[in-house]
Order: sequence, then structure tokens, then C-alpha cells
Amino acid sequence: MLDNIFLEALAAVIEEGGFDKAALKLNISQSAVSQRIRNFEEQLGRVLVVRATPPEPTEDGRKLIKHLHTIRLMEHDLNDSMGLNPSGEFVTLPVGVNADSLATWFLDALDGFLKEHNVLLDLYVDDENRTHEMLARGEVVGCIGTVSKPVKGCRSDYLATFDYLCLSTPDFYKRWFKDGFNRESVAKAPAAVFNRKDETQSQMLEKLFPGDSVAHPIFYIPSTESFVDIICRELAYGMVPEFQVEEELKSGQLIEVAPQGRVPVSLYWHSWNVETKLLEGLRRELVGYFNKNV
Amino acid sequence: MLDNIFLEALAAVIEEGGFDKAALKLNISQSAVSQRIRNFEEQLGRVLVVRATPPEPTEDGRKLIKHLHTIRLMEHDLNDSMGLNPSGEFVTLPVGVNADSLATWFLDALDGFLKEHNVLLDLYVDDENRTHEMLARGEVVGCIGTVSKPVKGCRSDYLATFDYLCLSTPDFYKRWFKDGFNRESVAKAPAAVFNRKDETQSQMLEKLFPGDSVAHPIFYIPSTESFVDIICRELAYGMVPEFQVEEELKSGQLIEVAPQGRVPVSLYWHSWNVETKLLEGLRRELVGYFNKNV
Repeated sequence: MLDNIFLEALAAVIEEGGFDKAALKLNISQSAVSQRIRNFEEQLGRVLVVRATPPEPTEDGRKLIKHLHTIRLMEHDLNDSMGLNPSGEFVTLPVGVNADSLATWFLDALDGFLKEHNVLLDLYVDDENRTHEMLARGEVVGCIGTVSKPVKGCRSDYLATFDYLCLSTPDFYKRWFKDGFNRESVAKAPAAVFNRKDETQSQMLEKLFPGDSVAHPIFYIPSTESFVDIICRELAYGMVPEFQVEEELKSGQLIEVAPQGRVPVSLYWHSWNVETKLLEGLRRELVGYFNKNV
Repeated sequence: MLDNIFLEALAAVIEEGGFDKAALKLNISQSAVSQRIRNFEEQLGRVLVVRATPPEPTEDGRKLIKHLHTIRLMEHDLNDSMGLNPSGEFVTLPVGVNADSLATWFLDALDGFLKEHNVLLDLYVDDENRTHEMLARGEVVGCIGTVSKPVKGCRSDYLATFDYLCLSTPDFYKRWFKDGFNRESVAKAPAAVFNRKDETQSQMLEKLFPGDSVAHPIFYIPSTESFVDIICRELAYGMVPEFQVEEELKSGQLIEVAPQGRVPVSLYWHSWNVETKLLEGLRRELVGYFNKNV
């Protein structure tokens, strides 16, 4: 059987991003970490870690780390069923999440679950392609995505659909769109876009001006809260999920610039197809949150 | 002389992250973009772009892009001095900033400047090593950092020093630290850490328990606002800049867990050593903000 000590050394080197940091986490010396990895590699006759900065797992290394995550989850169930879970011991679940979800509903949905099960999250905020890749590689146990199609070996569950609205302040609208939201005004007005991978702005323009890409000034601001902030400061207009700005809309601080340009975005929970109570609980919690609240 | 059309095609391919996206930005066909890059490379007898996904500039490509940024800044000054700046035309400045600064004081400091000079920002939020590398490569014109030593060809200006405090709710404190904040309680209590590159937690522990690395449960949460959120939700304790939680401290919602473990962090503005009004204005605005407000 595989030695857990070796598996844990391997996972620590990859997750912490270095042999030195793995040593800190495992409370052993750095040379002991290197020795464990070397022994493990010799035992299996395979290279498991590419010695780069940060170290990268090989294909085989990845399979072993995913195996360790699965064992941890199963062990949690086993202890639980035998009444053995030492209270106060945490399980850490690596999870991918998009910035908008994390800044708004994500923690609210999981608050109770995390407390009840002594779960800590190891959150990765990145674009969807990246978190899907991490899921497929076994680096996260689940992630939030906008496509329904599950990754191989995973399942996907529908969560909710949010409208992204095209918003500005009334004064910004008067200044830039007094003759309407058309090709001419769009070409001149500064738009806020999260980063180069954020497509809601271009999807909105494609919806209103099909087949005709409009070049326009862009303020790139990769922070969910600051994104709304620069719109309120009249530095730009931009696409924001409706539920994030309910107050600003009600008070009239922000108005819809192009009501025809709403872009609906659906969210799905993608997770490993492994039957463990923790993963199943996480899934139920996320799906249930939207059935209750939306 | 170098052809601006070529320079702009090169910069667009790198900044937009693809020949297709560069085509959209420049409002020309993708094959026209490729043609311009090829012509430029033939003219100079150098490879400028590594055709990867996304495309990477070569060392020479980088120098040319930095050159273009400098020309744009100088042209802005020139137009300005001749009263020629077409009103409504934006200049975009690529700038690196850390997540905490962006979420708190950064936009407030620059609000007036951005409006007055029709400047849009192209913000990169990444760890400091990465934004410094971008500065050295000429991919950003300036960045916020915590070290004072300037990058080659750049200058650095002191901005301010903030204390990071170790915080939790009173109930969290009673539950986890009722016998004090010591090695034993720290080993058990869940701590919030931004990501693997965030060192304030380990700096605080090193200060209180020198030479003795304490392994402890960690909740990784790479979002400035959600970071405070999980502390308020009693899912963890963690290190937060004082000015971000003034209200919570005053109301007693959060308390200092380890007053001896405050970690001061100094911020510096690093920018190109080029004499242009815009860069000089940006610098003056950032430095002046803290002389007025702190």
C-alpha cells in the first residue's frame, strides 16, 4: 500500500509551492521532505515532481495527490460513522470560485456548513478555464463555473442564473449617452471591464450591435467591489450582476444604461463524482441555497 | 524611424493576449495583425513575439512595447503643451497594485487625477514580485510595492505605513484563545490567510514565537472584503490592515487577538524614471494623498 507520509509530503510540496514551505507545514526539515519525495519516486519508479519554482507535479504526481484528497474525504466519513472525529480537527477542501461569487453570495451559502463540519476552504479565485483545469487535475474538489457540461470524472449541478446589467450614474449617462446608447457614443465612453477574460461587456455589445465589434476605451479593474466603486465615481460604466447593486438601483445612484443589453449568466457547481459525505454536503448546501433564496 | 502602426500591433497582441483580440481592438482583420507583426519582424531582423497561447513578447519585443508606452506619454505632454489634446480622448496607463490597496484607498487617491486628465487605468492585481517584474519589463508604468529599493530604470517614493492587526470576534476569542494566544491555542485555531504569498500571518507568529514555526489550520481566501467577512462570521481569525476595520474595532465587533503581534507594512510607489507630466502627476497624487490623509 502507498505510504501516507509520502503522499502527504508530495501534496505539501505542490500545494505550498516549495520544499521549504512544505517543511514548515509538515513541521519537519527541508531535507526530510526531499528525502521522502525521492524515496517515493524510487519506490514507484516514476518522477512525481518537476523541480521548478514553484515545483510542478507530473501527470503521475497529480494522480497521487487526487488520491490523497479522496482518502482524506473518505477518512472523514469513516471517523464520523464511528463517532471518532476528534472535535476541533479541521478538514481543508480546495475549491475554485469566481471573484463575483466570492464577493457576494458564496460565504453566505456555506457559512453554516463550514461551522457544522469543521471545514476550512482553500479557495482559488481564477478564470473559469483555469479552475476547470484544476478540477480535472484533482487540484480542487469542486469549482463554480458558467458552463453546464461536466469535466471528465465530475458532475455538475445548476445553481442559479443572474442578469448582468449595464450600469452608470445618471450624470455619467447624461454626459456620455445623451443622444442614446449607440455605436457613436459607445466608441467614446469609458467602460469598466474586470480583466481580459471578462466577456460580459463584449457580449452586451454583440447583443445590441450584432456582428459589429465596437472599439472603445476600457478601464480594466480586477476587483469586484472596486468595479462598482469606479462606476459610482463616474469613471466608467459597466456590467454588474443585478443582486450586487440592488441598493444602488433602488436609490437611483445607478441606472440601467442599456436595458436591452442584459446578459444572463448561469452558475453551476462542478465537483468530483466521489460519494463522500463532505462533498455531497457541500453540493447540497450550494444547490439548496438558491432554491431557498432566489 | 519605427512605424507606430507596427508598434501598436505588437503592443495589442501582447496586452490583449492574442492575435484575434488584437484584431478586435485595432478594428482590423486578424490576418492584417499577423502581417504587421511579420513585417515588423522582417524589418528589424528579430523575432518579437513567441507564438504561444497567450503570445509572449521576446526581450526585444518588450523593449519596443516599453518604447511605445513612453511615446504615448510624451505625446500626451506634447499635445497638452500645444493645446491639442482632443477632449474626450483617453490615455490608458497600465499599473500594478496590491489587492488590499485597490480595495481600500487606491481609487480614492486617484479619483480627481483620473477625471482631470482623462486617464483610464489598466490595473494588474498580483503579488508584488510579479508586478515588480512587470515594471522592470515595461509592462506597467508603475506599481505599489512594500520594498523601498527601486527596480533598475525606475524610482520609488514612500507612501505610508499601515499596521496589520491580528483580529477576531470576541466570541471567537473566547472559544479558541480563552487560555491566551500561545503555541498550543495557535496550533488549533483556524487562521485566515489571503494566499500562499501572504506573509503577514507568519510574520506575526515569528514576532511572537521567534524561531519556532507553528503549524496551524489555515483558511485561504484571496479576496480582501471576503477576508474580513470570514473573520466576522467567526470562521477564522486573521491579519487585517487597521484602517480597513476602523468601524468594526470601534463597535467592538472585532478585537485585537494579539496586540504584540502587529505587523507594520510600508507602501511605496515604484514608477519609470521618465519625465512626463502624466507619470509625474500620478506620483504627486499618490504621495500627496497620504501627506493629507494619514
